[in-house]
Amino acid sequence: MSFDTGLLALDLLGVFFFAVSGSLLAARKRFDVVGSVLLACLVSLGGGVVRDVILGVHLPSAFGQPIYLVPPILAAALVYIFFNSVQRVTSLLTLFDAGGLALFCISGTLKAISLGANPVAAILLGVTTAVGGGVLRDITANEVPALFDAREIYALPAFCGAALTALVWHLGWFNLVTGLTIAALVFAFRVTAWRRHWYVPLAVHGWHRQLD
Amino acid sequence: MSFDTGLLALDLLGVFFFAVSGSLLAARKRFDVVGSVLLACLVSLGGGVVRDVILGVHLPSAFGQPIYLVPPILAAALVYIFFNSVQRVTSLLTLFDAGGLALFCISGTLKAISLGANPVAAILLGVTTAVGGGVLRDITANEVPALFDAREIYALPAFCGAALTALVWHLGWFNLVTGLTIAALVFAFRVTAWRRHWYVPLAVHGWHRQLD
Amino acid sequence: MSFDTGLLALDLLGVFFFAVSGSLLAARKRFDVVGSVLLACLVSLGGGVVRDVILGVHLPSAFGQPIYLVPPILAAALVYIFFNSVQRVTSLLTLFDAGGLALFCISGTLKAISLGANPVAAILLGVTTAVGGGVLRDITANEVPALFDAREIYALPAFCGAALTALVWHLGWFNLVTGLTIAALVFAFRVTAWRRHWYVPLAVHGWHRQLD
Repeated sequence: MSFDTGLLALDLLGVFFFAVSGSLLAARKRFDVVGSVLLACLVSLGGGVVRDVILGVHLPSAFGQPIYLVPPILAAALVYIFFNSVQRVTSLLTLFDAGGLALFCISGTLKAISLGANPVAAILLGVTTAVGGGVLRDITANEVPALFDAREIYALPAFCGAALTALVWHLGWFNLVTGLTIAALVFAFRVTAWRRHWYVPLAVHGWHRQLD
Repeated sequence: MSFDTGLLALDLLGVFFFAVSGSLLAARKRFDVVGSVLLACLVSLGGGVVRDVILGVHLPSAFGQPIYLVPPILAAALVYIFFNSVQRVTSLLTLFDAGGLALFCISGTLKAISLGANPVAAILLGVTTAVGGGVLRDITANEVPALFDAREIYALPAFCGAALTALVWHLGWFNLVTGLTIAALVFAFRVTAWRRHWYVPLAVHGWHRQLD
Repeated sequence: MSFDTGLLALDLLGVFFFAVSGSLLAARKRFDVVGSVLLACLVSLGGGVVRDVILGVHLPSAFGQPIYLVPPILAAALVYIFFNSVQRVTSLLTLFDAGGLALFCISGTLKAISLGANPVAAILLGVTTAVGGGVLRDITANEVPALFDAREIYALPAFCGAALTALVWHLGWFNLVTGLTIAALVFAFRVTAWRRHWYVPLAVHGWHRQLD
């Protein structure tokens, strides 16, 4: 499998995970099926479009390669057909979102590197790709972005994943095994932090979080 | 009238319609006149700027061609002078918004085609142009975007208009008459759906909408 | 000091001011330190990224030049260490935001001129740079953007500063002294309007503001 094919597969899988999170949020918000497809597209393709626009890639993959439309349509269809219990929405949404985050911080960093960005820019673009779609999703649906929610650890796993990807790449060790290992670590970090209620200190020294 | 002049006229008329919808929302939200001009600019020029940035057009028309500033300033002035009944805001806003939607899904698709985008990308960019400004307007004014409101059919008319435009163009039948016919169909679809309370099924099979 | 060095210094100082406003808002919203760094980045770098993307600069300075990350990290650290009184947040936030506004309407206009934009486009891009980050900050934090708040005069000082910058530049009079004078005027206009409760008329003729 060539590098480009591998990167495409990684990216499309991340698109699918984020798309499911978008359609699940659409279900919770009681949007209609068109809104479900659109929110799936926004969250799964938005981060990559922002990355490609910043890198000066015209057209961004989501517009130039029609295959990128398959995962969001599939995700909306799966949620339409199989979803029937509102209780599980929050957990499922968080798990699929974590899967997208884990894959996008890698594919975003690699795409930036392959287009000649310096390591710092590549890491920043990896993080932007990973968190961008979710922020667009939450803003559009009028939720507080998980990115800024002090009860969540969200950006930190993406940053670690992007930094690890850039490091492993520059050491020449990047391959399918190391890539999937990084993805698994990011996923585990995000999900464990969520399950165990890990916190980061508040923005001001000495301030303590109020009981929720 | 050349193709470029016709496209510019179509685009400027769409800009004017969306600009009026922006200034009407500014009135309903009790913004000041500066906020009215700014919201008119954001909604009428935002979708096109996003389209041009994605297509790699620098500068986007809204920045490069000062004539694009005339419709939003005119719209804010007309709303300032003639508007005095808050009752009619919602209806008027929806009608002007539908006019902008009908023209932008055509001009957005044509501009993408004229810059060499493939048909699928051109349709997606037509839809993005048509719905982009309205989404920016609603997010900025802290409203639920009409795009995601399950009581509205909003994206579907834009999608049909963009797809029809791409089809008619590729058949070589695009001209002033067919263009205005598509615009009229999109406008009629959107407004009839709104007046008759047409709905699309919800995002999950078997879920029914609650009474509003 | 060369023009480019001067422009960079001006820009970085504006980045720092906006970054402090972002971290102060993060403190008021009780975000954690990671959210504080991210909001500082978004507000201080967002306007410039939007400007560079519109101008077709790849990579935008915020991604291509790592030095742009220093001010937001510094700002989040300063707020973390020294901030301990919630009473002063609103005033401080407004003052730092006004400082960023004053510097960015100048640096944004100059950068657009230096890349060959016409004067109208340069003024529009100066205003976009100046108000863009603050709008992103307020939307993300679910606040009404100060830009649209009828109790604030926000866009007008930025517009005057950008127009003055373009005028003084085209007269060949732009230098450190005239630049700092324009910045001081914009800052004074914004802060005086805020302290003295200056208002702009509402979006509709004859409508009066309700008592707050």
